[in-house]
Amino acid sequence: MDIPAIHLRSQIDSVLTAWGFGAADVAATADALVWADLRAIDSHGIALLLLYEQFLNQGSLIVRPEVAVIRDRAATAVVDGGSGLGHRPACLAADLAAEKAQAFGLGAVAVRNSNHFGAAGFYAARMAEKGLLGIVTSSVHLPAIVPTFGTVPMLGTNPIALAAPTARNRPFVLDMATSTAAIGKLRLAKRAGRQLPAGWALDTQGRPETDPDAALAVKRLTPLGGSRELGGHKGYGLATLVEILSTTLSGAAFAPLRPKDNARLDVGHFLMAIDPDAFRETGDFEDDLDDLIDAMRASPPAEAGQPVMVAGDPEHAAHDERSTHGIPLNDSLLNDLKALAERCGAPFHLAEEVP
Amino acid sequence: MDIPAIHLRSQIDSVLTAWGFGAADVAATADALVWADLRAIDSHGIALLLLYEQFLNQGSLIVRPEVAVIRDRAATAVVDGGSGLGHRPACLAADLAAEKAQAFGLGAVAVRNSNHFGAAGFYAARMAEKGLLGIVTSSVHLPAIVPTFGTVPMLGTNPIALAAPTARNRPFVLDMATSTAAIGKLRLAKRAGRQLPAGWALDTQGRPETDPDAALAVKRLTPLGGSRELGGHKGYGLATLVEILSTTLSGAAFAPLRPKDNARLDVGHFLMAIDPDAFRETGDFEDDLDDLIDAMRASPPAEAGQPVMVAGDPEHAAHDERSTHGIPLNDSLLNDLKALAERCGAPFHLAEEVP
Repeated sequence: MDIPAIHLRSQIDSVLTAWGFGAADVAATADALVWADLRAIDSHGIALLLLYEQFLNQGSLIVRPEVAVIRDRAATAVVDGGSGLGHRPACLAADLAAEKAQAFGLGAVAVRNSNHFGAAGFYAARMAEKGLLGIVTSSVHLPAIVPTFGTVPMLGTNPIALAAPTARNRPFVLDMATSTAAIGKLRLAKRAGRQLPAGWALDTQGRPETDPDAALAVKRLTPLGGSRELGGHKGYGLATLVEILSTTLSGAAFAPLRPKDNARLDVGHFLMAIDPDAFRETGDFEDDLDDLIDAMRASPPAEAGQPVMVAGDPEHAAHDERSTHGIPLNDSLLNDLKALAERCGAPFHLAEEVP
Repeated sequence: MDIPAIHLRSQIDSVLTAWGFGAADVAATADALVWADLRAIDSHGIALLLLYEQFLNQGSLIVRPEVAVIRDRAATAVVDGGSGLGHRPACLAADLAAEKAQAFGLGAVAVRNSNHFGAAGFYAARMAEKGLLGIVTSSVHLPAIVPTFGTVPMLGTNPIALAAPTARNRPFVLDMATSTAAIGKLRLAKRAGRQLPAGWALDTQGRPETDPDAALAVKRLTPLGGSRELGGHKGYGLATLVEILSTTLSGAAFAPLRPKDNARLDVGHFLMAIDPDAFRETGDFEDDLDDLIDAMRASPPAEAGQPVMVAGDPEHAAHDERSTHGIPLNDSLLNDLKALAERCGAPFHLAEEVP
């Protein structure tokens, strides 16, 4: 069924409110999840309510968190997320980083004691809307990436996002996990009865695992690049870079060392804004980025009909399509969300398709 | 032959001086190249003199450049490299970024109108020595990475480096190209008579190329990840991120759009410093990073005898070995350097081995 975005938003609002979250958390979380669903980043949209319910049930999520700026220097600050959802503290951090960039040319805010915050690209794009470059990294509560030469997951799928403003094109928006493939892709292969390509996942001995059931049972992903031969050590280094910026700098938990008796996930984020006008004459950055994007798109493709794209293109296209025709939610997800709404006593808003 | 670092330094000094470079350029370039040779980053050591001679001969390198800070705001600045070698302006930028980080918590300096600057990790490590996180990116004069779905190289092997200070361990130093493999690895395979792994290089139609001769003839590298299936679009996005920070932000050239009648290469760099004390109590960042590093090294390896490492470990080990026993230079390189010294009338300093 194709559901209008406004109904997804109502559903997220109702569920979060029924769980006891306050208006500021509800607004920030709904913004972030609907943003992802409109852009076909389905793993980071309304489906996340099912994960957040798990966190609530296991005591990993406080519904009335104290979110506070606990340290504020010239171009930097630290936000404590109060063990609540990550969206509100990350929005606060993005806006504060943007203010600092407007004042100093550059601003960075680290968030500690946070939780899942949806898609990193949402916060990067929020800074790009203000004419700034936005760079966002985050740790993940669950280690999934196995280091080069290792057998045990030590790093989350640690995403990195960059959004940059343009004049005549849509903004550049890169949002990538530093694993080769997402857990979601393993699930898709399993549902389709397909083997995994060698290089996505590992078995408990650190060898390539191509059976999707076995891979999902142990959840050991390769860093971007896959094997050592294909540059997996670079992806491992990059996932570590994201971990250092997100947790070591903010004072959040490095997940493998998080105390086992502590239910709070203590996820960390890093949000940085750069004002291009601190480096270039006004408009020159946007013009040059437009030229770069145009040159990429005009470069000769391997197959006619599949032009070269730049980061953000598929999501912009999905946004235009889904803003008009609604967001396709499959029956399995709709049933899960209906049951979830019933469990918390929230009304169900997803029965009505786009006319 | 194993040559003491001090002789490599003398050789670099003599050649650059014979070419007409001034003392500031000679010192910065020698520092950067010897740093790489001591760490077994052989592609970015004294061998680069052969590349720099080509640049001189084709008129792409000014030996008495005017290096200047052309824009200086609170936490940001822009340096013009004057079309000289990149090492001096990049050292200036790293030191200025560090000063700004000490004042504002964060500092970033973009360099335009520059040239090859050696290993990005050298500048990141220079900032880490001052107790700061150093992040460095650079464009490359020659496009080599083919974008996802494309057939033509549009991006350099665009490196990204992060160095971070520690207390009881050696510093974390990541320095990685955003291509799957370096051109140097293609040359090694050719010399060894080995086929390339599918996923390193492409033919002119955008299909995998495994013949090293054919691959070296067209020099079309995949972005980190290789094929689309193995996440090559992420490496492409990352190489573009590096390009945007290095050239669009600094005002340097995006190589595919550089005017053909312009001999200057107009390479761009981006150097950023972050003061961990702006985010954490003094010492806490270093302690937590040490814990992270220790946990990685202690995690179970796939093979006994090959422990999990962190970025910088192989280079630190090489540094200790080569500081004592000298730097192994093969006869082919020694002969090339001897001929180069003769061409510019510089004395030859590399005949003497470590006793």
